[in-house]
Amino acid sequence: MPGVSLTPSDKVTIARALDAVGVSTVEAGSACTSDGEREAIARVASEGLDARVTSFARGVRADVDHALSCDVDGINLVVPASDRHIETKVGTTRDAAVERTQELVEYATDHGLWVEVLGEDGSRADPAFLERLLSAGLEAGADRICYCDTVGAATPDEVADVVARLEAHGPTGVHTHDDLGLGLANALAGVSAGADFVHATVGGVGERAGNVALEEVAVALDEGYGVETVTLAGLYELTRRVADVTGVGHPPNKAVCGANAFAHESGIHTDGTLKDTRMYEPYPPERVGRERRLVLGKHAGRAGVRAALSEHGVDASEADLDAVVSRVKELGDRGKRVTDADLLAIVEDVQGRTRDRTVELLDLSATSGAGVPTASVRLRIGDAERIAAGTGSGPVDAAVEAVREALDGVDFDLDSYHVDAITGGTDAVVTVEVDLSRGDRSVTVSASEADITRASVDAMVEGLDRLLAATDDDVPGEMPVASD
Amino acid sequence: MPGVSLTPSDKVTIARALDAVGVSTVEAGSACTSDGEREAIARVASEGLDARVTSFARGVRADVDHALSCDVDGINLVVPASDRHIETKVGTTRDAAVERTQELVEYATDHGLWVEVLGEDGSRADPAFLERLLSAGLEAGADRICYCDTVGAATPDEVADVVARLEAHGPTGVHTHDDLGLGLANALAGVSAGADFVHATVGGVGERAGNVALEEVAVALDEGYGVETVTLAGLYELTRRVADVTGVGHPPNKAVCGANAFAHESGIHTDGTLKDTRMYEPYPPERVGRERRLVLGKHAGRAGVRAALSEHGVDASEADLDAVVSRVKELGDRGKRVTDADLLAIVEDVQGRTRDRTVELLDLSATSGAGVPTASVRLRIGDAERIAAGTGSGPVDAAVEAVREALDGVDFDLDSYHVDAITGGTDAVVTVEVDLSRGDRSVTVSASEADITRASVDAMVEGLDRLLAATDDDVPGEMPVASD
Repeated sequence: MPGVSLTPSDKVTIARALDAVGVSTVEAGSACTSDGEREAIARVASEGLDARVTSFARGVRADVDHALSCDVDGINLVVPASDRHIETKVGTTRDAAVERTQELVEYATDHGLWVEVLGEDGSRADPAFLERLLSAGLEAGADRICYCDTVGAATPDEVADVVARLEAHGPTGVHTHDDLGLGLANALAGVSAGADFVHATVGGVGERAGNVALEEVAVALDEGYGVETVTLAGLYELTRRVADVTGVGHPPNKAVCGANAFAHESGIHTDGTLKDTRMYEPYPPERVGRERRLVLGKHAGRAGVRAALSEHGVDASEADLDAVVSRVKELGDRGKRVTDADLLAIVEDVQGRTRDRTVELLDLSATSGAGVPTASVRLRIGDAERIAAGTGSGPVDAAVEAVREALDGVDFDLDSYHVDAITGGTDAVVTVEVDLSRGDRSVTVSASEADITRASVDAMVEGLDRLLAATDDDVPGEMPVASD
Repeated sequence: MPGVSLTPSDKVTIARALDAVGVSTVEAGSACTSDGEREAIARVASEGLDARVTSFARGVRADVDHALSCDVDGINLVVPASDRHIETKVGTTRDAAVERTQELVEYATDHGLWVEVLGEDGSRADPAFLERLLSAGLEAGADRICYCDTVGAATPDEVADVVARLEAHGPTGVHTHDDLGLGLANALAGVSAGADFVHATVGGVGERAGNVALEEVAVALDEGYGVETVTLAGLYELTRRVADVTGVGHPPNKAVCGANAFAHESGIHTDGTLKDTRMYEPYPPERVGRERRLVLGKHAGRAGVRAALSEHGVDASEADLDAVVSRVKELGDRGKRVTDADLLAIVEDVQGRTRDRTVELLDLSATSGAGVPTASVRLRIGDAERIAAGTGSGPVDAAVEAVREALDGVDFDLDSYHVDAITGGTDAVVTVEVDLSRGDRSVTVSASEADITRASVDAMVEGLDRLLAATDDDVPGEMPVASD
């Protein structure tokens, strides 16, 4: 995938994760690429995985040799299939392509390699020639052939037609891309037509719009067609691990792995889900190792708000509930996400309860640049004021360290820290969302500011205040500061 | 979509953008939601768009009245179709649901509304009952009916079977979700079976894994089936505008709108693309209002590197080229993206050219917190040193302002500023990528630091240095600083 480069240890991490869910074959890279890539492939091959480990190889002997030097189990041998690739790219002829393919398959199998032959640009090739090319590969000893929609231009009907012709010759796989958004539909069409092997990538990373996503293939085959492949319950963890390594995140609205894949906001959806979890879900989130999430926003209804309040131990009368729902909607109308902290502030206001803040930020100062990033905070904690300083890898880190220092003795965890991608100008408003927990209580808070340091500290202090307020019986005892 | 709330003016912006590409019907919201939502819908309805403007309405008269109060052209009337929705959610019976549907359709059409009847959870309903329910809607005067795969659980074959039965009764649409990754395949299966209307959202935003993406439906219908819908050339602009408003970005590997949708990195792909642009593209990027992009990384080959160097006006011998390719791959092996600035640094080193830096950062200091974010920089520009300070909405903004101030008189644009989402800890390394331009030259630079301020300034100074070096004949004249 353009812009993504994996180090050898990244590749080992991913290969192990793939092996853990039971993927049958791991293509660890393209051995012709570079020394680093060969090192990576060799390391994956030596991991002792259950999965077969292969290297991509172009239709040249040097690539097969490079693969052999990595001690892989097999190769995915890519040979040109369309006239555009045969004539314009490689500069050869159909006959020569067939001959070369057979030579290379024999060479590879003679050296003990498992061989899959892929007809590159197969979806734009003459189907009769593709059949001739790939069946020649099987005759020469290849273990498998593969229909490739290299540019993601095929439709499911086309895939089904050609795969049916190919699989009559031997074991056939499908390699599909998502340029028309049909990567998954085409993979399934191939399976329906007799393919028993699908090339996929976690999260659908890959050239251009990417390859078909492994997690979607696995779930769709299982849920839609009753075909078992990998261990579904490990899929979410797998997608997270790969995203961490590649740096390619998932959009919230992405099947299986997106933050919203099992989230419900609108009043109708939340109400329905509270009555029957299957109301708005095709399958239970636990199947892929996830949990359901109810989200508040302008589409919120009474049932969802009541459930959220009750999670925070707050009772509300019917009249109060109406008022809270209406305020939640107002906040939503202004384009804002409604976090736990927002909801609690609203219900306090509606119920006329004064909020006694346990923790309050009085001052913040952070410096960064050439020296050691340094920050100081002045907090009010209970009746006491506490000033503390911290250093860190940047101003945000230093400021968070200063807050921790000021709260010395209070046991809490910063479970997650997230800043959305910042695109546009350097003056863009940044939204920081943190999850904090203390014992078995947790809270989500967001804060938006143009200053990322300020937003981070605001969110953190607000969250701490909520956590400490929820357990205020034991705060003084646990917090030496407050009894100064 | 959970977490996304649009203000009235956001909705108008999106509605206009949809109208501009020729979308036939804009569902502007759900009038029962809130006052703000009704204001939004009414404003969209009064825009004088070519598109029909509708409101979502549940199967209750109050929702139809709310829609009427917004002066919309029509409604998308959602009535329960599966037993789960009829019995558990709404608490009614099949017969009563049919009766209620007919009453509401008559009520709405009597008030001059265009009416589409959607059978909610239709994909999990008894097909015979769905047919009865929706055909009853048509008999009562509805203009259109819609097959809804509300939870995204259907397969294309199932959709085709049921849509074929429905469309025998009258105009039929399809409403599909992407929970199994089949939103698009199901929409296309519906169209093949006779549906002439597809519900879609830009970028596929929507509940859970989202609805089918409008841009994918349009491109797949056109490219795969020769069916024209909206103006394809406006699609990219549309997806960008909607992403700006919703704050929901697109992953790089997303068809049509993703940053990589028309990017090529690997040596094979770049080499092929330079020989024939169609080699690795299903259709030309210009069709959807985009441009092709070649990216360098560890899969880079000679052809791609030569093309990139030539863009920057650098000639390299064959031997130098080999050395540069090898260094680019090394950088890629270490997990780094290779930007313009990286490439230029490599070729200078390979050719043994000493780089005369025109601009260099000597010192940076930024403070933020409670007061006005302030920063100072000390730069060497040509032979002169220049110290300047700036303020901004945060430390990054202040520091960038200080750099601008120090370079007073140098004409340049910061075309884009991007920070990837930061997930994990507050000490995470942040990668800042900037595009800078000066006249007709532009350069992309990235810098990674745990300190976002430092990374931003490093990237910017490096980029400015590259731009000024490329035009160094005219620098002294344009830059009063350098002749101090």
